[in-house]
Amino acid sequence: MTRPRVAVVIGAGDATGGAIARRFAREGYVACVTRRSREALLPLLAQIEAEGGQAHAFGCDARQEQAMQALFEQIEAQIGDIEVVVFNIGANVRFSITDTTERVYRKVWEMAALAGFLTGREAAKAMLPRARGSIIFTGATASLRGASGFAAFASAKFALRALAQSMARELGPQGIHVAHTIIDGAIDTDFIRDNFPERYALKDRQGILDPEHIAEQYWQLHCQPRDCWTHELDLRPWLETF
Amino acid sequence: MTRPRVAVVIGAGDATGGAIARRFAREGYVACVTRRSREALLPLLAQIEAEGGQAHAFGCDARQEQAMQALFEQIEAQIGDIEVVVFNIGANVRFSITDTTERVYRKVWEMAALAGFLTGREAAKAMLPRARGSIIFTGATASLRGASGFAAFASAKFALRALAQSMARELGPQGIHVAHTIIDGAIDTDFIRDNFPERYALKDRQGILDPEHIAEQYWQLHCQPRDCWTHELDLRPWLETF
Amino acid sequence: MTRPRVAVVIGAGDATGGAIARRFAREGYVACVTRRSREALLPLLAQIEAEGGQAHAFGCDARQEQAMQALFEQIEAQIGDIEVVVFNIGANVRFSITDTTERVYRKVWEMAALAGFLTGREAAKAMLPRARGSIIFTGATASLRGASGFAAFASAKFALRALAQSMARELGPQGIHVAHTIIDGAIDTDFIRDNFPERYALKDRQGILDPEHIAEQYWQLHCQPRDCWTHELDLRPWLETF
Amino acid sequence: MTRPRVAVVIGAGDATGGAIARRFAREGYVACVTRRSREALLPLLAQIEAEGGQAHAFGCDARQEQAMQALFEQIEAQIGDIEVVVFNIGANVRFSITDTTERVYRKVWEMAALAGFLTGREAAKAMLPRARGSIIFTGATASLRGASGFAAFASAKFALRALAQSMARELGPQGIHVAHTIIDGAIDTDFIRDNFPERYALKDRQGILDPEHIAEQYWQLHCQPRDCWTHELDLRPWLETF
Repeated sequence: MTRPRVAVVIGAGDATGGAIARRFAREGYVACVTRRSREALLPLLAQIEAEGGQAHAFGCDARQEQAMQALFEQIEAQIGDIEVVVFNIGANVRFSITDTTERVYRKVWEMAALAGFLTGREAAKAMLPRARGSIIFTGATASLRGASGFAAFASAKFALRALAQSMARELGPQGIHVAHTIIDGAIDTDFIRDNFPERYALKDRQGILDPEHIAEQYWQLHCQPRDCWTHELDLRPWLETF
Repeated sequence: MTRPRVAVVIGAGDATGGAIARRFAREGYVACVTRRSREALLPLLAQIEAEGGQAHAFGCDARQEQAMQALFEQIEAQIGDIEVVVFNIGANVRFSITDTTERVYRKVWEMAALAGFLTGREAAKAMLPRARGSIIFTGATASLRGASGFAAFASAKFALRALAQSMARELGPQGIHVAHTIIDGAIDTDFIRDNFPERYALKDRQGILDPEHIAEQYWQLHCQPRDCWTHELDLRPWLETF
Repeated sequence: MTRPRVAVVIGAGDATGGAIARRFAREGYVACVTRRSREALLPLLAQIEAEGGQAHAFGCDARQEQAMQALFEQIEAQIGDIEVVVFNIGANVRFSITDTTERVYRKVWEMAALAGFLTGREAAKAMLPRARGSIIFTGATASLRGASGFAAFASAKFALRALAQSMARELGPQGIHVAHTIIDGAIDTDFIRDNFPERYALKDRQGILDPEHIAEQYWQLHCQPRDCWTHELDLRPWLETF
Repeated sequence: MTRPRVAVVIGAGDATGGAIARRFAREGYVACVTRRSREALLPLLAQIEAEGGQAHAFGCDARQEQAMQALFEQIEAQIGDIEVVVFNIGANVRFSITDTTERVYRKVWEMAALAGFLTGREAAKAMLPRARGSIIFTGATASLRGASGFAAFASAKFALRALAQSMARELGPQGIHVAHTIIDGAIDTDFIRDNFPERYALKDRQGILDPEHIAEQYWQLHCQPRDCWTHELDLRPWLETF
């Protein structure tokens, strides 16, 4: 009897993480989704089940080493083989350099980079014995260039990209596909709708990213045969200047 | 009555170009393939037809402005709407800088960059009135960094990448998806088999790129909805150091 | 009476930091040098004074926000105008991803990135009222690419580069020159001599970086007039492959 | 008796090339300057001589292989040892992709890339026997990214950068320092004054590059000892967004 295949999404609190979890569930993967509050994941759980998929929700602070170790061990022990891990926690803040507190600089890094490291390391531990699996880190425009007001955010996103590159070069020849995406544009989320209405109005012309389309690209990354892997994938709307 | 959709592959002489043409033909596109000698394309034509697809072959020197203009005009006039154009001409040479003749430096550029420019421009002319279509340029490791012995080749591949970027930024907001690929590894071709047997032996472990898998990625690029476009796609085998 | 000009070197414990401090002292700047143990700086202090310069040494943990605030305030209050700040703390470690502990990943970031942030922010606070000054961050090969075994180190160095870019874009138009260097090669230090003797043997052919030559480049960066600023400077020996 | 040291500037027609030639002449180098019309160089010649330097002017089409070979041979035979070669020909044009003719695309490449290749190759031939010398290529913003309207210009500048990288990696271990500059901003020239008056007005605030300051940086590049070489140098005004 074969064990179920599992797709883990760390940071499934937003539209993108949710869409990715649903996309993999649609293919028969058991979706294991996390965010700090388990309760907030229940609607997503219900939606996946309504679509005929299987899912588990975990309340988990991804910055806590022991919590993350326990999470991955529990999934492997009780649910199935972790085949896909997506790290999807963002931490976008904007402050001038002199207004950036040590607390903010550290917290953004903990959320966007340290949590990514713990995710990637635990994923690697689970996958290495099988020499198989995909680990995908979600990046942003700030992963590629620093900008005024973005010292904290860009520092954390650069760090995450360095992690992805280092892991890709180390784990690739051991059979594990590590990829990093650059989401370069606004995503169709409540946050953009409520805070950037002008930007959101581009939705009618497909000027902002549809989370389902992002999820499709993550699925395609995972499907790539190992002779033909992508390590960095930029995704942006046609109207985006770059 | 709707006009047929056409996929043009400039430089279909190698395994990659052929696989791309077949991939699009399988989806119902009429494949229009070129290389300098039309006759050499006949086996590919036969194969596409045997697989149930439609194809036309053109003998065409892609470095000739008038020939390229005539080619695109003829396809639009007689065959259908050009929806996809793939530029796939390589020109890999290796010489020390002092051994690189003006003739070599110029010829490599004409094949890999000038022909790419003519392809891209004629593709844009055909697609702009419909505000739709994909143009994909095939790049290589040398598109990203110059290396000892590769002054001519890297110069030409860098130029092609600059073309792709410039066109992507100009034509994106006009509805046309321009993408550039980085093929970073050996491809499963007769050339690699005959000249680099050690490298070719990696095939058993999926250590070299399968043209059919590259073709699949080109197809996926074309399928991206316009809110979620990739502009540069790296493709490499799991065993490749990078 | 004009106030003295001050050059601060955070992390003057190695040959490079010491050479930089001496280079600025030679031009009449008061060198303010730090490392965790003040005592370990006394030989450098003596050397600067023997060369006719002025210097002050501070024992200071650059990861401590309050300590860094106090340091910069004290220098401005008691010594002079901070015109140059060099951040020179490295933290090179190498572990496979599964062997990288949370403690190591965090500590390397605290030393190489968080301390850089605190340095850069306090430097900016001191310089902004005068709309003048140079802030230079020392980077490495790992600032540009992740590599197997370097997840922690590359993450921290990428973060530092993001900080430098963000600060350069924010502070440049306010008169402050922020630059990032890429030291790509071994430096002539005791550490290299004792641990990498083969590498060190290249010294006879100028195959490793002389700290005095690095210091000269930092001085030249500071001398650039504001119409002609460099924001990233790579420095490597002629024999280095890259 | 030691032979004179020579600094060759290919493309000394603009303010930058002239300032570079004067800078090296001030250090005792015999400046050998070229542009298509020798006569147009006579004022520069007179200026260098008035400043106490030595100079020779050559009318030379840098796109012509034989002319370039003859030029370098003549200088080595009749004037001295070529220690420095600066390639400074630009070819900035702006056309939409569909308005870019084959003639323009080719001509821009011939001026900015092919001429650079011939310059670099002949420089290498002269320098290799002495295992010494600097070759500097002048790049621009368009060397790093393509932009709408800049398909031709960016293609040529990318090609030149690939040449510089390939030559640096090949010739560095043979003792020759190859560097590429990124001039990212308007330069104080008649052209900018006459055509971009708003931009030119930034001159009062040092918002445009002073050719003399650029020249100083080229001189500093040449002075770098071989354990501490820079291979790419960005230069931009403090007010420039980037």
